[in-house]
Amino acid sequence: MSDVLKFLQWRYATKKMDPSRVVPEEKIERILEAVRLTATSSGLQPYQVFLVTNPQVREQIRAVAWNQAQITDCSHLLVFAAWDDYTPERINQMFDYTNDVRGFRNEGWENYRQMLLNGYPPRGPEVNYQHAARQAYIGLGTALVAAAEEQVDCTPMEGFVPDQVDEILGLRAQGLRSVLLLPLGYRKADEDWLVELPKVRRPREQFVKEIR
Amino acid sequence: MSDVLKFLQWRYATKKMDPSRVVPEEKIERILEAVRLTATSSGLQPYQVFLVTNPQVREQIRAVAWNQAQITDCSHLLVFAAWDDYTPERINQMFDYTNDVRGFRNEGWENYRQMLLNGYPPRGPEVNYQHAARQAYIGLGTALVAAAEEQVDCTPMEGFVPDQVDEILGLRAQGLRSVLLLPLGYRKADEDWLVELPKVRRPREQFVKEIR
Repeated sequence: MSDVLKFLQWRYATKKMDPSRVVPEEKIERILEAVRLTATSSGLQPYQVFLVTNPQVREQIRAVAWNQAQITDCSHLLVFAAWDDYTPERINQMFDYTNDVRGFRNEGWENYRQMLLNGYPPRGPEVNYQHAARQAYIGLGTALVAAAEEQVDCTPMEGFVPDQVDEILGLRAQGLRSVLLLPLGYRKADEDWLVELPKVRRPREQFVKEIR
Repeated sequence: MSDVLKFLQWRYATKKMDPSRVVPEEKIERILEAVRLTATSSGLQPYQVFLVTNPQVREQIRAVAWNQAQITDCSHLLVFAAWDDYTPERINQMFDYTNDVRGFRNEGWENYRQMLLNGYPPRGPEVNYQHAARQAYIGLGTALVAAAEEQVDCTPMEGFVPDQVDEILGLRAQGLRSVLLLPLGYRKADEDWLVELPKVRRPREQFVKEIR
């Protein structure tokens, strides 16, 4: 079995976190770095990650997230917040930054910039936000594996009122909309109903179809 | 540096694949297994993965995907296809299957089933498809890491005409809609303009905001 498969077998959506245990900052940083490094469409990285440890802010978020205890019991709370739109400014910023890092301009790359500038902003904010939000899910899929390698538990959450989380964190004023919560911490195994239950996934033959 | 970070540093969106190299089936199976094992919302796994090796089918897909050569140059093509809706049948099937695997019924779990049965189908197919499609991106985020561990290259692609890929693979009749393509194979480094360029990501301080 590969390491990634071992990490995925180890992880589960932790239902009870141990509020007394703190994840070392270097582990948190490696998980964040994995999210930063993973893929996004055209490399635009159209989302940000909020690292929330403030207890009052976490209480406020918990109150608009079905009162899920992991939000306050966890060690560090991540909030994935997607761009509310692809604007020319945002697109240009990433292409300019890429040129800065690489130290040259490239015709193919500039043509690609123009294609996005011509194509994305006219689609309108709702289509663009939905597209940006999908990219945050790539980050989540990467974070799950990175956290498991660190033996850090997590609980991916969509169950919250996005508009209210946006307000608590002041996201709209930053051109962002909340997409996902990811509490990071350590399982409290003796109080977690899910920890001993087998992981359930559809069999391979139902999940994969082969066209040979 | 953790292994996951090494894998993410190694990978890139491969622009030129070597059509003469075939990825061993056991590597493909481990990548597929990682996708099967990763998280989805409520564990519903609302998408399927098509494993396409058939050359004619890949030619057809390439023709509706901006003629991107990786689709036919790669060794194996994955197509992620999301459920077109959350129906009561699909929800019940996953909850029933979970009960079968675990060997018991649980009141909390049955209440959760009812919540999804009451909540999801009335949202309508477009909202439900969009939600299902997001889950496929978690699978992509996991597949990227799993492929890199196997030293298999890949190229995540959104650039195709979904309706036409749906038609080529007969997806709509199966209640599915195409979301993502993921060619898997081996880079042809001497013909790949991107392979030697540095990976560009926004600095950590622009990507992460801390609320302490």
